[in-house]
Amino acid sequence: MTLTIYGDKISGNCLKVKWTADRLGLSYTWIDIDVVKGEAKTPQFLKVNPSGQVPAVVFDDGRALSQSNAIIWRLAEGSDLIPADPFDRAVMLQWMFWEQYTHEPAIAVRRFHKTYLNKPDSDIDPALFVKGSAALARMEAALVGQDWFAGPALSLADIALVAYTRVAHEGGFDLCAYLGVKAWVARVEAALPITG
Amino acid sequence: MTLTIYGDKISGNCLKVKWTADRLGLSYTWIDIDVVKGEAKTPQFLKVNPSGQVPAVVFDDGRALSQSNAIIWRLAEGSDLIPADPFDRAVMLQWMFWEQYTHEPAIAVRRFHKTYLNKPDSDIDPALFVKGSAALARMEAALVGQDWFAGPALSLADIALVAYTRVAHEGGFDLCAYLGVKAWVARVEAALPITG
Repeated sequence: MTLTIYGDKISGNCLKVKWTADRLGLSYTWIDIDVVKGEAKTPQFLKVNPSGQVPAVVFDDGRALSQSNAIIWRLAEGSDLIPADPFDRAVMLQWMFWEQYTHEPAIAVRRFHKTYLNKPDSDIDPALFVKGSAALARMEAALVGQDWFAGPALSLADIALVAYTRVAHEGGFDLCAYLGVKAWVARVEAALPITG
Repeated sequence: MTLTIYGDKISGNCLKVKWTADRLGLSYTWIDIDVVKGEAKTPQFLKVNPSGQVPAVVFDDGRALSQSNAIIWRLAEGSDLIPADPFDRAVMLQWMFWEQYTHEPAIAVRRFHKTYLNKPDSDIDPALFVKGSAALARMEAALVGQDWFAGPALSLADIALVAYTRVAHEGGFDLCAYLGVKAWVARVEAALPITG
């Protein structure tokens, strides 16, 4: 398939799509959408994704898809990034839903306020740090005795979770308190690979 | 498979699992977990789901799974609740991720504060009403010219989205402003079927 990806490279959600496409050797056109400048809310972009969010992709037949984790599922279906075992596959989805419900709304949002809106800590909802720290502790516990989040190898769960975990320090989270997570980040970065 | 479902019937996320299992004719044991009483945070339940959330399921081999939308995926794999077409299947997941990221955190959370914590509107974050109304408007637009959210028939996307949409009035949202959504709720209730 040929592919157009609309994304902003400050967004881990968008980078998930880039990394998955790169890992699978898919060719694509990347169109930058500057979220901070409001480019995801223009009438032109709302035709691509009426929800006004990046990432979004358009396939060669003109059909569009949004939601980072649904997009990487579509790109990776039939590849080794989705476990063949049905239970492992469901565990992969479990972590991908957990990422969007529990991890991203704390860790990515705190990073956005701190690094991209340049807010001082005192202007950021303190619940974000508490929730983000709890999410990292949950990951640390899950990684005891296993290298990857779902099944015996790298999967979309790792790609989804690494996106904002590897830049958690930009949200004020110190991964030195989560050494299992830190080692897993390095493992995922090497496996994808992620450079820069 | 034999199945144990841990859930609270005030939770739409838990009912998704019940409805899917019932629709598929699966036999299961239902174990009530009272969220308001804190039963999802007991040491005993944390052994089932270390994230302390319902629903969670345990299969006959002792393996556990959490996250409502991952659970219904596992139960329904290979059934007509998941579209056979790969693009439709990805659209289904798109709406399921959207539900957990955008819809549930506004509509279900406002319902919980209003109906289960009995808070007056003045004590509830006004952003929840704005976000929930926008989510319902997004659904209304998506349903123009189509009966179901993904593909030509009822799918897990409809089950995921109906769970809190059908009780949105308990969160102070009036579905009479979203007549396409209202008609779709009735369609999903009839197709599942949902009684009571």
